[in-house]
Amino acid sequence: MNRYWSRRIQTIVPYIPGEQPKDRQFIKLNTNECPYPPSPKALEAIKKAAGDTLRLYPDPECVELRSTIAEREGLDLGQVFCGNGSDEILAFAFQAFFDSDREVVFPKITYSFYPVYTDFFGLKRREVPMNPDFSDPINLLCGRSGGVVLANPNAPTGIAVGLDTVEQLLQANPDVVVIVDEAYVDFGADSAVKLIDRYPNLLVVQTASKSRALAGLRVGWAMGDVGLIDGLRCVRDSVNSYTVDRLAQAGAAAAIRDESYFQSIRRRVIATREWVEKALKEKDFTVLPSQANFVFASHPSHPGKELLEGLRMRGVLVRWWDKPDIKDWLRISIGTDEEMAALMAALDEIL
Amino acid sequence: MNRYWSRRIQTIVPYIPGEQPKDRQFIKLNTNECPYPPSPKALEAIKKAAGDTLRLYPDPECVELRSTIAEREGLDLGQVFCGNGSDEILAFAFQAFFDSDREVVFPKITYSFYPVYTDFFGLKRREVPMNPDFSDPINLLCGRSGGVVLANPNAPTGIAVGLDTVEQLLQANPDVVVIVDEAYVDFGADSAVKLIDRYPNLLVVQTASKSRALAGLRVGWAMGDVGLIDGLRCVRDSVNSYTVDRLAQAGAAAAIRDESYFQSIRRRVIATREWVEKALKEKDFTVLPSQANFVFASHPSHPGKELLEGLRMRGVLVRWWDKPDIKDWLRISIGTDEEMAALMAALDEIL
Repeated sequence: MNRYWSRRIQTIVPYIPGEQPKDRQFIKLNTNECPYPPSPKALEAIKKAAGDTLRLYPDPECVELRSTIAEREGLDLGQVFCGNGSDEILAFAFQAFFDSDREVVFPKITYSFYPVYTDFFGLKRREVPMNPDFSDPINLLCGRSGGVVLANPNAPTGIAVGLDTVEQLLQANPDVVVIVDEAYVDFGADSAVKLIDRYPNLLVVQTASKSRALAGLRVGWAMGDVGLIDGLRCVRDSVNSYTVDRLAQAGAAAAIRDESYFQSIRRRVIATREWVEKALKEKDFTVLPSQANFVFASHPSHPGKELLEGLRMRGVLVRWWDKPDIKDWLRISIGTDEEMAALMAALDEIL
Repeated sequence: MNRYWSRRIQTIVPYIPGEQPKDRQFIKLNTNECPYPPSPKALEAIKKAAGDTLRLYPDPECVELRSTIAEREGLDLGQVFCGNGSDEILAFAFQAFFDSDREVVFPKITYSFYPVYTDFFGLKRREVPMNPDFSDPINLLCGRSGGVVLANPNAPTGIAVGLDTVEQLLQANPDVVVIVDEAYVDFGADSAVKLIDRYPNLLVVQTASKSRALAGLRVGWAMGDVGLIDGLRCVRDSVNSYTVDRLAQAGAAAAIRDESYFQSIRRRVIATREWVEKALKEKDFTVLPSQANFVFASHPSHPGKELLEGLRMRGVLVRWWDKPDIKDWLRISIGTDEEMAALMAALDEIL
């Protein structure tokens, strides 16, 4: 605190990102990054863009990148928006579509940035309790509200819902925007993109940070009705017109065009997740059914914090939250087979 | 407008960035970019960073880049904040330090993003009229307010104030934050950085977009008391924890370390500005005394819009605003000597 702070920030509790150790000695299974490098074509495109034209502002409208996404998804250019990671886009969307006098509704256990957004932007929220199996409480998201946010697959649970369920949500909330945060969709869930033409209140948000292995580049995108995209543009042009730099635009476009590389790393992550899930269950862990690049797991006789610290001592970082509902759970990102074997060996020592 | 927009964006008039033509046929003197390429060392650092580690999130605290800036400026690491261009930092600062019930004060003719910020963040503002010679109305900025914003040099006028004047402002406003926006400081003005240790209410904002020729990279930084820097961090972590990507952090740090390259392009821009100012005056233009990488000029017998359009037809882009006070003025960025000679030839045709 400082005497010069505005009232708004005096009371806010900001989001805390997962640790980014600088010495790189850890096996890093704590921030859901991709264990495989980015597409070589993305790196090539970045190197090509790293030239004299960096003296010029980037295209504020990101036309090349948006066209690439629009073409892949069968959308119009005007149905796509690009930003500095999906977090920035979510922050823009909370400001563009939600008003302070009506509650924004989302599941109680979900991406922990959502309640930070509602607090920071002065919005009310209703966090609805999960079903007993940690699946999303869809019925509770269908009531009257000022907007709905659903991560699909959800994080940190990894549980996905089908498109029929997303459609149920959209139909139950025709007067407010439903944000479907698909950061992890490529690891096993169905994208709601195909519903965009039928639901003008649907905003689908995706990212290059996970399945495109470009967390270090900061690129995310939203897809939806042109009216919603214009709303995001309006927010962006009220805070910072150029949030996606030239290198990020070039690199992300090349990564998205390299479909075969994308498919191959996506499949490898899924294959690793499958044996990891099985191996954890053999060690008596409860593991939620994940469609993401992480698993959410709990052990009957070892508290989450103990496991977190034991793993850290053994050089493995995972994510844990000091929250009553999930304090005995760990979110473990899916690394390479070798990294996950090291995790298993570390767990064997601890258990 | 769209039925799903929040009340906040229904009424906002966003900032409109200068045109970024995609065909690159124009001589681009409209967005104050540097006419010279970035430091070769910056490009090299970017290419080196364009590797496997892009799969990992960037350092959210930008420690290497901040250390580089802190060392150059004789500050502590905790006195430096980095963001996605100085626009993002200004947007963060308006949220971190200004409250809705007290007016933010700035000159009437200044960077046109400031009134967008106050509108968008629900703040009151008082825009104080310029002195008759277009210099900053310092006395009017000294009265009671909820905060002060001063671009030094100012844009689009190019006029700078001395450090004694900045100090006068700081002393007259001890209870509120004074933001000194130094986007153009390296082209002839004195930086207020040396006042930071004495004034806990001073926030100095700079950018890599102008004198480091890296507009395409999106890097800006703020310098001030650690309490103010913590406030900016608090806002960032409430909207998007990683706004400066790995390539931008590496490239900007290398550019800042390349002091001799920086000094050489800075000097070239100043030398060109000097003859341009003289040449425009010979064509009967009134030219304000600029300490920036642009000049603000007005012709007695040719309205601003006519000149804007005449130049555009001849392949030269400059900036013009449809505002009563300055509608007969053009803001002309300083390009290379060749580009400015082409501007002069185009003006000769028009006049």
